[in-house]
Amino acid sequence: MIDFKQLADQYRDELLERVMPFWMEHSIDHEMGGFFTCLERDGSVYDTDKFIWLQCREVWMLSVLYNKVERRQAWLDAAVQGAEFLKKYGHDGQYNWYFSLQRDGQPLVQPYNIFSYTFAVIAFGQLYLATGNAEYADVAKRTFDIVLQKRQCPKGQWSKAAPGARALKDFALPMILCNVALEIEHLLEPAFLQQTIGICLHEVLDVFYRPELDLIVENVSQEGELVDCHEGRLLNPGHAIEAMWFIMDLGKRLGRPELIEKAAHIALREVEYGWDKQYGGIFYFMDRLGRPLQQLEWDQKLWWVHIETLITMLKGYELTGNPECLTWFEKVHDYTWSHFRDPEHDEWFGYLNRRGEVLLTLKGGKWKGCFHVPRGLFQCWQTLQRLAEQS
Amino acid sequence: MIDFKQLADQYRDELLERVMPFWMEHSIDHEMGGFFTCLERDGSVYDTDKFIWLQCREVWMLSVLYNKVERRQAWLDAAVQGAEFLKKYGHDGQYNWYFSLQRDGQPLVQPYNIFSYTFAVIAFGQLYLATGNAEYADVAKRTFDIVLQKRQCPKGQWSKAAPGARALKDFALPMILCNVALEIEHLLEPAFLQQTIGICLHEVLDVFYRPELDLIVENVSQEGELVDCHEGRLLNPGHAIEAMWFIMDLGKRLGRPELIEKAAHIALREVEYGWDKQYGGIFYFMDRLGRPLQQLEWDQKLWWVHIETLITMLKGYELTGNPECLTWFEKVHDYTWSHFRDPEHDEWFGYLNRRGEVLLTLKGGKWKGCFHVPRGLFQCWQTLQRLAEQS
Repeated sequence: MIDFKQLADQYRDELLERVMPFWMEHSIDHEMGGFFTCLERDGSVYDTDKFIWLQCREVWMLSVLYNKVERRQAWLDAAVQGAEFLKKYGHDGQYNWYFSLQRDGQPLVQPYNIFSYTFAVIAFGQLYLATGNAEYADVAKRTFDIVLQKRQCPKGQWSKAAPGARALKDFALPMILCNVALEIEHLLEPAFLQQTIGICLHEVLDVFYRPELDLIVENVSQEGELVDCHEGRLLNPGHAIEAMWFIMDLGKRLGRPELIEKAAHIALREVEYGWDKQYGGIFYFMDRLGRPLQQLEWDQKLWWVHIETLITMLKGYELTGNPECLTWFEKVHDYTWSHFRDPEHDEWFGYLNRRGEVLLTLKGGKWKGCFHVPRGLFQCWQTLQRLAEQS
Repeated sequence: MIDFKQLADQYRDELLERVMPFWMEHSIDHEMGGFFTCLERDGSVYDTDKFIWLQCREVWMLSVLYNKVERRQAWLDAAVQGAEFLKKYGHDGQYNWYFSLQRDGQPLVQPYNIFSYTFAVIAFGQLYLATGNAEYADVAKRTFDIVLQKRQCPKGQWSKAAPGARALKDFALPMILCNVALEIEHLLEPAFLQQTIGICLHEVLDVFYRPELDLIVENVSQEGELVDCHEGRLLNPGHAIEAMWFIMDLGKRLGRPELIEKAAHIALREVEYGWDKQYGGIFYFMDRLGRPLQQLEWDQKLWWVHIETLITMLKGYELTGNPECLTWFEKVHDYTWSHFRDPEHDEWFGYLNRRGEVLLTLKGGKWKGCFHVPRGLFQCWQTLQRLAEQS
């Protein structure tokens, strides 16, 4: 029998005593503002470029902790300085968010990536909740408007698709919007919120989820059909599993238990499909027809895949009572804590090879920052706490 | 003592009896023209998209074999049908070469990649030698003119660099041009050829080769300085080693033995630096300061890295007599033949994990086609043959 209280404490302690202190100590650029995210195993800075995804995500994470855990001034101060850096340097003046900046804020890579925008939305939306500063709400709303405008052609001028070419749409955007919509519901008109959520749910569950496979695919045709090409065959189990807790949150918020049931079903199917029967852990990429992948990193075990699975399985168990969710939580918990957690230094490794050996010693980089580990620890702690109180 | 004659036969037999038959049997699209390159372990087609790099490279390889090995009509016919497909569908009418096409020739990905152009140059240049068809010479020359025009800003409108951002130039283009210039010397004015070669040699040996490291870096600033960012720290030993046999060929052609000596020195340094002391094989990517890499595939062992090293070490031994080159040839030969060669089906594997286990079962894909394996076997065969005749 699982001791939910003890587990809740384990997740809380890891978050508050080993993970957030790492970011608070090593990531804040006290000289030029914003955050360093390229941090070695011991927290030393190995590169000073600033990636907008991760700048935004750290502002968001700090604001969430301030809003939901404890009114710690240091968290708020760090979030505000990050947001001020982003306001000043992160976009082109029209809320077109660059992909990356030099340490001093000089733009490096153009605003080609729509997720820089979506993470700006959640950062400023959450910081507005912490501060009540209307300027932050305004940045979030204006940026969200641009995201919605760009939805049909998110890459804009940087798209390499030849005109008239086989056009695909990808799962990532509707999936993230499921989460963004709930994140900024305090800033949206209720009717508009409902409509946006409805579209996202439809895309995730009726378009990218394929009943004939009982799996979510990463790309479909503009007409919503399966395509037999590399992108059209691509599966990313962690991505699908992460989306399922967004759906569960929506199901809870909307009072629609059938959404939660469906999400739990899909998540269980994905984790079984994605689990590496030989070495354990969940594969990064798979091909739905079993064909060779273009992604050379397909067999690696990534931190976020496993942490998102923990969140989903716990929420699935809490909301549906399905014991399979709990069994998978335990299995993935054991793998994750024994492989990703660094016993010597704070924070967790991000990239393991197929065998579960550390592939890169970094704690943060271009894609890993103050986000999946602390968000996952926070989410699991909260869910475990509720389960402990119920039992 | 190495038996050069026996080894020469081994490389020749592998080329003519196991590798070229694979491509002749499985890659030609008899229905729509051009080549399939996404071929599984046994040669079965798993994807029908057509990548211009590989379409061009197969035309080139078939033409080389026809020109230098044997006037086999089947090779010429296959090359000509590939070239006709490329002439009709591969570019936009202005010799701007797409990156990829659908099976039927419909463009898929825009002409963002300058190497699609450089490989078109060598394909049509070599096929002109085989056929005497002036139209092929014209395609090669016109495309080469565009390559030279695009040199300063090869990505054009698809560049994601923010204006005024830290601008880098990369090693790949001058390195490939060293090879392209010799490939089409029959089409260029001698003075122009000399000038182009001079610029490329300068860039490779005086800009990207760094005496303070005794290594070649992948990216430098526009001013030719080392930069401390991910791209600026990046090393690709196989890339540097491949370039060294291009330089040796140029040194031989220009009668400049000091170029050959320098190239052999750099190649030896690179292979020692890039060799995986734990599991054998040459790493794909490294960081010159030992920092974590962005490339998740950094520790994998790739076919072309090893095959290019075989060519370079043999040429280095032939042209300088340095016994270290021969020692490294033998070491890499043993690794390559025992790990990349597929004992069950023709052609070689392309992608191994760090331990040398097969990571992807494909024989061809988006980046692997009828090129490095047959070119390497051909080059080694020829060099071994000369060494056998001398000894």
